[in-house]
Amino acid sequence: MRKVRTLFGKSYEEFTDAIERFHGWKAPGVVIGGLMVDLAQEHIGPGVEADAIVETIHCLPDAVQIFTPCTYGNGWMKVVDWDKFALTLYDKKTLEGVRVWLDLEKTRRFPDVYNWYMRLVSKAQIPLDVLLKSIEEAGRGMLSSAPVQVIRHQGKLKKGRIEICSRCGEAYPASQGDACLACRGKGYYERI
Amino acid sequence: MRKVRTLFGKSYEEFTDAIERFHGWKAPGVVIGGLMVDLAQEHIGPGVEADAIVETIHCLPDAVQIFTPCTYGNGWMKVVDWDKFALTLYDKKTLEGVRVWLDLEKTRRFPDVYNWYMRLVSKAQIPLDVLLKSIEEAGRGMLSSAPVQVIRHQGKLKKGRIEICSRCGEAYPASQGDACLACRGKGYYERI
Repeated sequence: MRKVRTLFGKSYEEFTDAIERFHGWKAPGVVIGGLMVDLAQEHIGPGVEADAIVETIHCLPDAVQIFTPCTYGNGWMKVVDWDKFALTLYDKKTLEGVRVWLDLEKTRRFPDVYNWYMRLVSKAQIPLDVLLKSIEEAGRGMLSSAPVQVIRHQGKLKKGRIEICSRCGEAYPASQGDACLACRGKGYYERI
Repeated sequence: MRKVRTLFGKSYEEFTDAIERFHGWKAPGVVIGGLMVDLAQEHIGPGVEADAIVETIHCLPDAVQIFTPCTYGNGWMKVVDWDKFALTLYDKKTLEGVRVWLDLEKTRRFPDVYNWYMRLVSKAQIPLDVLLKSIEEAGRGMLSSAPVQVIRHQGKLKKGRIEICSRCGEAYPASQGDACLACRGKGYYERI
């Protein structure tokens, strides 16, 4: 079993501290995500401008945002809401890259991690520090990777034509129709 | 015209440096977003655990992620893809909060900002440093805010039941059907 000793030039403790600073706590999913990003970067190699695609909205996007230049707001990280614990880093020029995922067969060797991920036990049954210890021990031993060619979701999302909503006076995309979604009752808020 | 002199306890330069560190460059949208978050936090007041909803995928989510504890991966920030330059911070207990937006009428007084946002000029016509200077001068003078009650998109997104895909062997949400989306040809990648 190979134990990862430094990650992104940091000790394991500094690595998990960086996660806590951004994410608010040492979430197991972000810690595993950090190990995944580290493995993916090793495959991609240095000097390649890599974009990211993440296959779940939970936890994993933060690992990419903490340990790569890709963020949600700069558009270099895309998120697809598939609820799969996997991510791809790829060369933005060639669209070739590597997909890394939590490999369940391998993860069976680390029962705390397996049971946590498959939700076979409650959080109370596995204290966070025990789970984090198991994740550290598992390291890359629970991950798999494969080279991939990205065929969708690559590239910059273009903004369409902007108009001014005739009801609220705010800018909105003309493609939404003759008033913005909020003014057409689809908003998430009510004025108070 | 009120000029914001410190933001999040930082000088204006430190404020834009923090943006560059996370976002990769001093993107005008993230700088305006930082001013919006600052205004929203002032309305919310200290000591309130606030969640965020952002109304565009472009730039603005990073302002929230840099200057609040809310991130995409921890779920305290939700993003709706409406292409409106607005965000809401709200008390996660009462769901009361404040929505802040780039007010176009007010922004007309700052032609560089207005022309940039409405895309009336090309990037070559307004150099970044000129635009950033205009944004700094505008400060809160281009923003409006209103108290709101959040009625949708609040709360934690629950994960559904997880199964193991019979084709790829990866964990996926049972709600996707009898195989995962990637195995049913909806993936963003091809193995190479």
